[in-house]
Amino acid sequence: MSRTGRRPGPSSTRAEITAAAARRFAAAGYDATSLRQVAADASVDPALVRRFFGDKEQLFTAVASALIDPERAVAAVAGGPPEAAGERLLRYFLSLLGDVSRPGPLLGVIRSAVTSEHAAGLLRRLLAEQVLREIAVSFPSGRPEFGAALAASQLVGLAVARYAVRLPPLTAADTEELVSAIAPVLQYYLTGQPISATEES
Amino acid sequence: MSRTGRRPGPSSTRAEITAAAARRFAAAGYDATSLRQVAADASVDPALVRRFFGDKEQLFTAVASALIDPERAVAAVAGGPPEAAGERLLRYFLSLLGDVSRPGPLLGVIRSAVTSEHAAGLLRRLLAEQVLREIAVSFPSGRPEFGAALAASQLVGLAVARYAVRLPPLTAADTEELVSAIAPVLQYYLTGQPISATEES
Repeated sequence: MSRTGRRPGPSSTRAEITAAAARRFAAAGYDATSLRQVAADASVDPALVRRFFGDKEQLFTAVASALIDPERAVAAVAGGPPEAAGERLLRYFLSLLGDVSRPGPLLGVIRSAVTSEHAAGLLRRLLAEQVLREIAVSFPSGRPEFGAALAASQLVGLAVARYAVRLPPLTAADTEELVSAIAPVLQYYLTGQPISATEES
Repeated sequence: MSRTGRRPGPSSTRAEITAAAARRFAAAGYDATSLRQVAADASVDPALVRRFFGDKEQLFTAVASALIDPERAVAAVAGGPPEAAGERLLRYFLSLLGDVSRPGPLLGVIRSAVTSEHAAGLLRRLLAEQVLREIAVSFPSGRPEFGAALAASQLVGLAVARYAVRLPPLTAADTEELVSAIAPVLQYYLTGQPISATEES
């Protein structure tokens, strides 16, 4: 099953396993995915997957945190003028989701969480404890964790409605149209800052 | 398997099949659900399910339209003062989702659509052609179908984040807190009307 003849080092093997796992979780869901299948997809021994990642739970968390990198998410929100935090968060999330005709692996993580209580618990922990809490710290308004969770709900909903259900007005809209419509909402959730009227007639 | 001794008429049999199908779609997802299982769950002959509903596709659409009743959704938005349309839509949707500790069958429909391209297509058609288009007609602003789709994305995201992923700040919030935070966003999406600042300090 060697594809190139070169002998990949541990870090590229790790990346290949993570990528294979992301594809499996996306296609089959969390519950139906086994370490054995992931190992076969990545052309490695199952024991190696176990040695690198532990069990399936830890593998899923590794995949999800590689995608929703807490540090990058928090940096996207906090790194820049506060009045554009919602826009930065949305652009970061859209870049994670990828092209509408060929969604990236993040959709698979969301899909797994929607169908498996176990995966949902892992994603909840990652989001609540590592991403949303940190984002909330940057916006010490009235109820920052509630606001950060509301922002997350809009982002997850955009992922589902645009990339999974594929509602035509959302697949037809480009990044700038989405940013123009949704960034003010994220800004409002994060800061309580009012949304100004759209310029559209 | 008779549960009551009474002989249900066709309309209650139909309702029992729909309820059994909703539970199956919720638990197993669209692809893994068969008419045979639904028939067994409803204690009827598979031929009866076929006679009432046709194939699995039509059964799913029947379940989804019974839950997201297009007429009721449109009436919720259009039936009342325009400045409270977002609030009415949100209250209707929250009533469909049910209690956070015991979500109703709508979550199963969303779950099916997230995991099956086929179910996603059916939900897309139902939402885009029967619900969102009608809602858009009530708000002939700049880009009404885009606005209605954005509102749908926030609602779907709330369903996923609160009922499936169960983010703690969203499960802890009650209906009035959710309405106070999210209704202005739906109103903004539907009408382009600005969101005023929250009263929270």
